[in-house]
Amino acid sequence: MRSVSEQQQIRVGIVGYGTVGRAAAEILSGHAEEIRSRMGGLSISVSRVCRRTPCTPDLDLNGVPMVRDWQEVVSAQDVDIVVEAIGGTDVAYEVVMSSLEHGKAVVTANKALIARHGEKLFAAARQKNLPIGIEASVAGGVPVIRAISEALAADRIKAVYGILNGTCNYILTQMEQHGIGFDQALKQAQAEGYAEADPTLDIDGFDARDKIAILARLAFGEAVDAARIPVTGIRSITATDFHYAHRLNSTIRLVASAEKTAEGVHITVSPWLEPRDSMLAKVDGANNAIFIAGENVGTQMLYGRGAGGGATGTAVLSDVLNIAQQLAHGQARANVFAGFHNPEPMRTAARLQPLRWFLRLTVQDQPGILARTAEALARQNINIDSVIQEPHMPKDNLSFVITLEPICECTVQRAVEAINKFEFMKEPVLLMPMISSNEEHV
Amino acid sequence: MRSVSEQQQIRVGIVGYGTVGRAAAEILSGHAEEIRSRMGGLSISVSRVCRRTPCTPDLDLNGVPMVRDWQEVVSAQDVDIVVEAIGGTDVAYEVVMSSLEHGKAVVTANKALIARHGEKLFAAARQKNLPIGIEASVAGGVPVIRAISEALAADRIKAVYGILNGTCNYILTQMEQHGIGFDQALKQAQAEGYAEADPTLDIDGFDARDKIAILARLAFGEAVDAARIPVTGIRSITATDFHYAHRLNSTIRLVASAEKTAEGVHITVSPWLEPRDSMLAKVDGANNAIFIAGENVGTQMLYGRGAGGGATGTAVLSDVLNIAQQLAHGQARANVFAGFHNPEPMRTAARLQPLRWFLRLTVQDQPGILARTAEALARQNINIDSVIQEPHMPKDNLSFVITLEPICECTVQRAVEAINKFEFMKEPVLLMPMISSNEEHV
Repeated sequence: MRSVSEQQQIRVGIVGYGTVGRAAAEILSGHAEEIRSRMGGLSISVSRVCRRTPCTPDLDLNGVPMVRDWQEVVSAQDVDIVVEAIGGTDVAYEVVMSSLEHGKAVVTANKALIARHGEKLFAAARQKNLPIGIEASVAGGVPVIRAISEALAADRIKAVYGILNGTCNYILTQMEQHGIGFDQALKQAQAEGYAEADPTLDIDGFDARDKIAILARLAFGEAVDAARIPVTGIRSITATDFHYAHRLNSTIRLVASAEKTAEGVHITVSPWLEPRDSMLAKVDGANNAIFIAGENVGTQMLYGRGAGGGATGTAVLSDVLNIAQQLAHGQARANVFAGFHNPEPMRTAARLQPLRWFLRLTVQDQPGILARTAEALARQNINIDSVIQEPHMPKDNLSFVITLEPICECTVQRAVEAINKFEFMKEPVLLMPMISSNEEHV
Repeated sequence: MRSVSEQQQIRVGIVGYGTVGRAAAEILSGHAEEIRSRMGGLSISVSRVCRRTPCTPDLDLNGVPMVRDWQEVVSAQDVDIVVEAIGGTDVAYEVVMSSLEHGKAVVTANKALIARHGEKLFAAARQKNLPIGIEASVAGGVPVIRAISEALAADRIKAVYGILNGTCNYILTQMEQHGIGFDQALKQAQAEGYAEADPTLDIDGFDARDKIAILARLAFGEAVDAARIPVTGIRSITATDFHYAHRLNSTIRLVASAEKTAEGVHITVSPWLEPRDSMLAKVDGANNAIFIAGENVGTQMLYGRGAGGGATGTAVLSDVLNIAQQLAHGQARANVFAGFHNPEPMRTAARLQPLRWFLRLTVQDQPGILARTAEALARQNINIDSVIQEPHMPKDNLSFVITLEPICECTVQRAVEAINKFEFMKEPVLLMPMISSNEEHV
């Protein structure tokens, strides 16, 4: 173990030199002086970089060796902390495991890796008493991991929810502000670099699912299997839905939420109707916002850029600096994340709390549609709050909206199943929960 | 130095058993099981409490010795961490210094103490290599100290601003929502426990000033003398001002702001006109919200309860738990807060950025008021944006508002000085900066 006096220099190896890896390296060298001052004289520098594609001269990092084989980084004598920035879950897994085996602390921004393999990785880290920094894995530069695992460590967290996917939020904001359809908004997001060529992970909600799984583990200390979280993405949201949402003084946001009740943990990812004057509706563009409700601390909100090199690189470095300080004082130690060590699978529970609902039906117009739909709802004892239909809609592809008085999810699901079987339905009902103004989200 | 295996129990001494001290003790015992699980088996308990007023039976903390003399706590063998919750700056200073001298780590929620004596306290702590936890000193349960000093440690922070005083925000929200005057709102805040019997520190802005001084030190690494920060409180805000603010689609909030430019650091506390659809205007009641603008991380916002036992106690315990972990691993260490170790006083700068302004004049009506006021503004080359005057105002106490096109603060101040000399002025001009919708604050 090194102490400050013996070791005033901490060396970082970066595996993967894309947006995040490169931003981390550039901030570390660009802000070297401030960082040294904030770290009480400790200096932290990049000693090795693994980059699979050949380097052009402008990528040269003041003579830092660039290698093609990640094993050269994780096994190097002159690397104290490995930053895994390679992405994916296969090689990344090996990189982290091998780093730990070589006695190196690890920092990663890889939510898919942590959501899928977190248990194994943290178990290995624990055995070696080494930390794995994961601040950058959720919500980019927004320090939500720290907030949950440190700032609220003494509180009992009841719920975590919010906007965790910047791509979806950018698309929804574009649709909201410009009245455009989903496809056009997606193309725009791709053109502006907010969405990948294959946008599935983002727009179908899997990215948000991995992130809420990580937050739920940290918040509730229970083992969360991301694959079991019900997920609805934003692919089926139309310009018409935004039109109807506006009529209801609302907008649409993809919300990931995790709630712990006496019955168990309830986690979902799905689009919600949010009142336009709510804080959540104010979160526009590629921003993220996370609400944390604690027994003592009340409801907190953290907001900021959820992605991008600068924000994510800063989050990666917050872990690097923290671990560097531990190393410099001869005392790196494994994280204690009960949710990743708890062998008990979480007890899942249905959402019992009655909610108001927004049902959008797209139909081939014919007499009796409203009567039969209303009857299907009445059969489940569901009260209709309003029916909204714009005039002059095309008869062969007519969209209208029914909003419901508060009712539990399972009941409305039963009614929707029945409605979806009607021969006039052109596509399945779009079902979204609704929040009233000044109402708490969960 | 103790290691985990030798020492699985960390003992906390609490000096001052008011709202915060008591909440910390109660959460620590009420959540003992969760905390032990989150701390990897480490248990943390209260071993001694100093309480100056006699104890009633319901305050008995499972047989924890209650003493009247704080020296018995800071010198006790069975205390590892001292929580200073006594308040004020005299005895509290002695408590912290004496704790450090006895080799105890310290946690405090005392912003006045840190703003005034931070340098001396952190110097003493550094000499002993002991930490002083100050998360609870700003914004209650909102983890803004962590965000600035850890999460953004690798970034260059350009500005920190927001709502730091829950009492003022509660009063302003009441005035906004119920159209009541300042005195009535203050009385209400006192009745509900949101304001002290002597509310001066809060409503005149000194509490917010101490907090922004602490945040500016952490963010910019410069020595900030709180006493030199210009402060305007909310005492002179009237129901009429809210009326005019509404006409401008805005509301009024007390904003503390610190900005670093090439010229120096600019810090102020004063009421601002905020667009009603802004995030800052959404912060109501006794909540706090802090915006942090970083070079790489963009603009972040943290929001939550800024006061109260539960929130502040949780923040105190976040530091207690962090320090306990350090102690258990034999490695407590002094904080590195450059702004508290930097002997160079900060270079202050005027606000150079042109702003729009709201001027409210209260006058004894007579012919020529507008002409003379407009002339005083024209003489400084200031463009008027609008003049708003409600009909049917009392002639002997008539309030009207002039809003200005963007102009720098020193220029508008010169004009206001001239206007204040006019014989028809019943009180000095109320001058507030204005933010436009979608405008960044600093």
